[in-house]
Amino acid sequence: MTRAWAVGLDMGGTNIRCAAVSVAGDVLLIEHGPSLASRKAGDVAENIAAQTLHLLDTARRRGLGSPRAIGVAVPGPLNVHTGTVMQAPHVAAWRGYPLRSKLEVLIGRKVVLDNDANAWALGEYWRGAARGRRDVVLLTLGTGVGGGLIVGGKLVHGRSGMAGELGHVTVNPEGPPCDCGSNGCLEAYASASGLRGLVEARLGLRPGSPLPEQIVDSEKNFSVRGLSAQARRGDEIALEAFATAGHYLGIAIASFLNIFNPELVVIGGGVAGALPYMRKTMTAQVRERAFTAAASQAKIVQAALGPRGGVVGAAYAALHPATRP
Amino acid sequence: MTRAWAVGLDMGGTNIRCAAVSVAGDVLLIEHGPSLASRKAGDVAENIAAQTLHLLDTARRRGLGSPRAIGVAVPGPLNVHTGTVMQAPHVAAWRGYPLRSKLEVLIGRKVVLDNDANAWALGEYWRGAARGRRDVVLLTLGTGVGGGLIVGGKLVHGRSGMAGELGHVTVNPEGPPCDCGSNGCLEAYASASGLRGLVEARLGLRPGSPLPEQIVDSEKNFSVRGLSAQARRGDEIALEAFATAGHYLGIAIASFLNIFNPELVVIGGGVAGALPYMRKTMTAQVRERAFTAAASQAKIVQAALGPRGGVVGAAYAALHPATRP
Repeated sequence: MTRAWAVGLDMGGTNIRCAAVSVAGDVLLIEHGPSLASRKAGDVAENIAAQTLHLLDTARRRGLGSPRAIGVAVPGPLNVHTGTVMQAPHVAAWRGYPLRSKLEVLIGRKVVLDNDANAWALGEYWRGAARGRRDVVLLTLGTGVGGGLIVGGKLVHGRSGMAGELGHVTVNPEGPPCDCGSNGCLEAYASASGLRGLVEARLGLRPGSPLPEQIVDSEKNFSVRGLSAQARRGDEIALEAFATAGHYLGIAIASFLNIFNPELVVIGGGVAGALPYMRKTMTAQVRERAFTAAASQAKIVQAALGPRGGVVGAAYAALHPATRP
Repeated sequence: MTRAWAVGLDMGGTNIRCAAVSVAGDVLLIEHGPSLASRKAGDVAENIAAQTLHLLDTARRRGLGSPRAIGVAVPGPLNVHTGTVMQAPHVAAWRGYPLRSKLEVLIGRKVVLDNDANAWALGEYWRGAARGRRDVVLLTLGTGVGGGLIVGGKLVHGRSGMAGELGHVTVNPEGPPCDCGSNGCLEAYASASGLRGLVEARLGLRPGSPLPEQIVDSEKNFSVRGLSAQARRGDEIALEAFATAGHYLGIAIASFLNIFNPELVVIGGGVAGALPYMRKTMTAQVRERAFTAAASQAKIVQAALGPRGGVVGAAYAALHPATRP
């Protein structure tokens, strides 16, 4: 007897993860490939379809049979009703692109599409830190800041599926510019690009200038891991940058507590590993700004699933159509 | 044949409105009384019960028979599961007060309890500006700022019913003190007390100082109506205060649009009448800070029901237990 399963595919700016996920949420099989995000709109979609078909083939050969459903998570605001990507930060060619219908033609099956942060939130809800909770605010602190909202056990999509852009609440109207075109968003502080900006400002560097070697990776790109290592060594600039990011993260979380009265705030993404360096200033702002009753009811915890959260959640979305808008 | 109906009671800081509301949302009968909010905890509850029993008596005499359900709305954060008022801004004696069980004993029937802003939101959803909408952010700009959230056609309560405190999102971490103990909350700008503070600051007055006669009522209290009249006459200080309030209201609304992707933002309460003087700066911030796709999908409109919204919504809450957490 084969186990019932679904495809969960998670496309990032660089890589695609494509997995067979059982109806219990176990990853039975996982494959990796490039996103090819800089290609033409149709080519990027064809690449997703090809990786899905490859997984289906591998699964068949391993005796898993056919999936019950196919879930695909991609970055960026999209309309979950129409399956159209409004605008994807990493895929310049996708602007108003009808991704779901393209994939359905290429794969020959129904596809459930959602954005990557929502998929990750569903993953944490199904199998991670938010398991069994009904009211959860989830934040991914990565290159940018994404979010997912679970209210009453359901993902909040809003009118067209764009809800949950928690990185783009204003935490300081006088704050630095944000990649979204506004300024003083949470993302302008508590993301990799926000931290980079804080370090640049502190060092008096113009945006995009070469950075000290301790805080860049082998390709000379800013590295949150490098900044964390500096903080661990007691470097003042690194500690200050994390303290500032934590301060504004706390301001945002206090607002979320007052808005949602959640049971749990889950923080994931690459920057979440540096939470120890942000927690003090974060907690101070939460204490100062959230209603005590709301704050005392919500724990603030790190995500549990890591990079597999997206594929697990994409599979969950596909397997649970009742959670769709 | 008698019409099916419910009691909807709305308690404010000064007055109680108690109505018989038909299952279609029509107010069949309404009575008014004092809140007696400064009395002892038990006396305030007995007063609510007495006014409810009075309405039941009047309804019986008018041939309306018995209600299907009883809904009571009171100010301040409360736990909707336990029926406990955590802390009520106008009723000093209610701190952790088990209001629902007290009322149920006094009235001899089951009571559905919610906070006043949530009740008003349900009223607007049932019979007002948000009729037929499924994703709505509702803001009451009164003495303070309250909020109600409708997501997927249901009121958001959060873990214990404290969700929707939209007046206490931070819109400026360097902003003026708020009655909640924090600072720079939306309420510190876009409420009657926020506007008063803006005028005091502009005039160089200490908080609570006597104000110019044009902007106080007959009891020498600050009057938003008076400030609006001054704005209509072109008074610079009044226009500036509303422009600042609108600016921060716009910052908050932009965040709500990015968080919820709603179909509609409804603004009610006494300060909403001054929206024409706030709209320009509000709209500028919304344009600057919200995702275009989210902003273009949501209208920002004034509430439709006025002061009866609370009783209509309290009755709705009582009649629709499926909307309860």
